[in-house]
Amino acid sequence: MEFKVKELEGYTPQIGRLVSMMNYARKTTLDAVHGLTIKELDHLHNKNANSIGALLLHIAAVEKGFQIEIFDGRNPNEQEYDEWGAAYGLGELGRKEIKDQPLTFYIDKLYEVRNRTLEEFRRRDDTWLHSERLWDNQPSNNYFIWFHVIEDEINHRGQIRIQLKMIPFLS
Amino acid sequence: MEFKVKELEGYTPQIGRLVSMMNYARKTTLDAVHGLTIKELDHLHNKNANSIGALLLHIAAVEKGFQIEIFDGRNPNEQEYDEWGAAYGLGELGRKEIKDQPLTFYIDKLYEVRNRTLEEFRRRDDTWLHSERLWDNQPSNNYFIWFHVIEDEINHRGQIRIQLKMIPFLS
Repeated sequence: MEFKVKELEGYTPQIGRLVSMMNYARKTTLDAVHGLTIKELDHLHNKNANSIGALLLHIAAVEKGFQIEIFDGRNPNEQEYDEWGAAYGLGELGRKEIKDQPLTFYIDKLYEVRNRTLEEFRRRDDTWLHSERLWDNQPSNNYFIWFHVIEDEINHRGQIRIQLKMIPFLS
Repeated sequence: MEFKVKELEGYTPQIGRLVSMMNYARKTTLDAVHGLTIKELDHLHNKNANSIGALLLHIAAVEKGFQIEIFDGRNPNEQEYDEWGAAYGLGELGRKEIKDQPLTFYIDKLYEVRNRTLEEFRRRDDTWLHSERLWDNQPSNNYFIWFHVIEDEINHRGQIRIQLKMIPFLS
């Protein structure tokens, strides 16, 4: 396998480098959860924990949220809140709603959301990537926001790895 | 505050963007551990856990390791193994050796190591950044390897955040 941050066919140079990083982060996420059962995906280490399944759906939800904000230029609608709200917010609602699904459910969602990002990226260029926009009301740019999507995924992948070590029936 | 991935003065364009990402990741690490006591830094959630202090020193150790490999083009020497081995490898040795230090100890190490990286980056250019080299015996390039340094930090910052939630005397 090749591990490079580099230009990629179908994308402008900077977007290609960004996609290289996204691809690698996603590979490590999928590697971390490979073969997990529903019981393992739903395991809650304590009453405030988020399950591995919930973290996986959260990774897709964060990306979905930025798609709606950046590509569609609007706020999420009611149907999107219903579908993604628990995964976006995690916590109590996440523990209640996100469970009883096999790994393929989460992986399908991750692919479905990511596919749209890549499709939109192919239609955009580096000038767009460097365009300024607000992030959390602070000066930012599209490059940073999509780096943040990667960063959020890696953060939760780190948490998935540590939770895997703590699941009693896995150790 | 400004959150952008962009060119930075003193660095070639791609290296500047990389440094933007490193700076942001580091800010979030420092934010996560702000104000922690020695007791909190040394807390072990279970017998296989790594303390938050050990994870902080590990972040510096990984960067130190790549400095030696990439900037110095050699393997670590005995003195470096002694100083950084426990932090690099974590686990049993990390639990035994890394403790009883205040937060400033870890922050100083993080700054000391990072300063050298930035100094070396200022002397290099984008051609160097895109140069190919092996990573774990696989085809890679300098950009990927330094992205991996960021990625490793974010991974462990995610673990630090989750451990903070689990420290009984913090909740």
